[in-house]
Amino acid sequence: MMKHLTTIDIAQMQQRNRARLINSLSGFKSANLVGSQDAHGCSNLSMVSSVFHLGANPALMGMIIRPDGVPRDTLSNIKQTKSYTINHVTSEIYRKAHQTSARYDANVSEFTEVGLTEEYVEGIIAPFVMESKLKFSLEVREMTQLMINNTTLVIGEIKHVIVDALGIKSDGYIDIEALDTITVSGLDSYHQTKRLTRLSYAKPNKHLEKLPLSGGEDA
Amino acid sequence: MMKHLTTIDIAQMQQRNRARLINSLSGFKSANLVGSQDAHGCSNLSMVSSVFHLGANPALMGMIIRPDGVPRDTLSNIKQTKSYTINHVTSEIYRKAHQTSARYDANVSEFTEVGLTEEYVEGIIAPFVMESKLKFSLEVREMTQLMINNTTLVIGEIKHVIVDALGIKSDGYIDIEALDTITVSGLDSYHQTKRLTRLSYAKPNKHLEKLPLSGGEDA
Repeated sequence: MMKHLTTIDIAQMQQRNRARLINSLSGFKSANLVGSQDAHGCSNLSMVSSVFHLGANPALMGMIIRPDGVPRDTLSNIKQTKSYTINHVTSEIYRKAHQTSARYDANVSEFTEVGLTEEYVEGIIAPFVMESKLKFSLEVREMTQLMINNTTLVIGEIKHVIVDALGIKSDGYIDIEALDTITVSGLDSYHQTKRLTRLSYAKPNKHLEKLPLSGGEDA
Repeated sequence: MMKHLTTIDIAQMQQRNRARLINSLSGFKSANLVGSQDAHGCSNLSMVSSVFHLGANPALMGMIIRPDGVPRDTLSNIKQTKSYTINHVTSEIYRKAHQTSARYDANVSEFTEVGLTEEYVEGIIAPFVMESKLKFSLEVREMTQLMINNTTLVIGEIKHVIVDALGIKSDGYIDIEALDTITVSGLDSYHQTKRLTRLSYAKPNKHLEKLPLSGGEDA
């Protein structure tokens, strides 16, 4: 049976319940840890489920940071150093990743508090998460406050990619399922995945084909 | 073994391969069909993997539309009518959903071409996808061209939510896995999910608990 909720029904929900409902609507979300460091060398790590692809050339990634959320240290650090990392969350570390969303003081490193390991690469200020199997560094290109609800859209350019070689396919696709990357629904539900298939590039009047995992025709 | 790709390595990749690589980096993506209609009543349906949660109060959703992509009809329709719908893709319809990304002419309805059913609700211009088990209508609030790469950020306010009642939990969470919503990785890989668990709200010095599927303490 389909249920139809109107604007009024949604407005009348208890606030936390409405937040859970609305956060469920976008579909499955990416699960990433954002690593940063302030100008004094104090590291910060925060769980972000709003990272999204913005473009491949130049290679750009967007993410939304809430004004009242815990990643305010992240925002401040990115402003100071222009550097951050994005690290895929795996089923091995998702509990630790979730714990980073607790409101720790700014002078406390979430790495230490939740038990994840900082990894530094020469020339990159922000720390990576050693336990992650797919991670990349970014340089901030734009930080725009969205007046509509006071969130900040952070746009970064991808610089270095560190990935378990097992995941890279010959056509460039990275098998993030094989790398144990997980996904989030709502505010607090974590999921592993099971591939249905890869599908060929769609054209009018052409039948879709299953692609082999290793990739497509122009590989 | 971890592989380290630099900016130079990425720049030197063949264009399609680079697109597949960069599109894999954000993690798992939402799989949604965006329904719209032009001023003459011609319907349009397009697969979008860039829908993201922007805020719960007011209930706002963002999505990125590429300048050269197929959803240019979608963009034009949303400009004309201010109305669109977002419909979760299930494992039953993901092939049809993928096929909507073929470059059909503007005067052709993807609903007809791929075999999905238009569903209209009184007072809402844009069509829903009847086969989807979680769908909602939006009114556009902002359309902003991102100068950095000429993509368009569309922000809409959620108005009506239509959802299979089986999916709604007592604390507001919607069990989108039970509703058969799928997820995308890269440009063309489709995945079902398997829940690890829901986790309790994180606080410093407090142990995380597994939440029952039906929800949290303040339900």
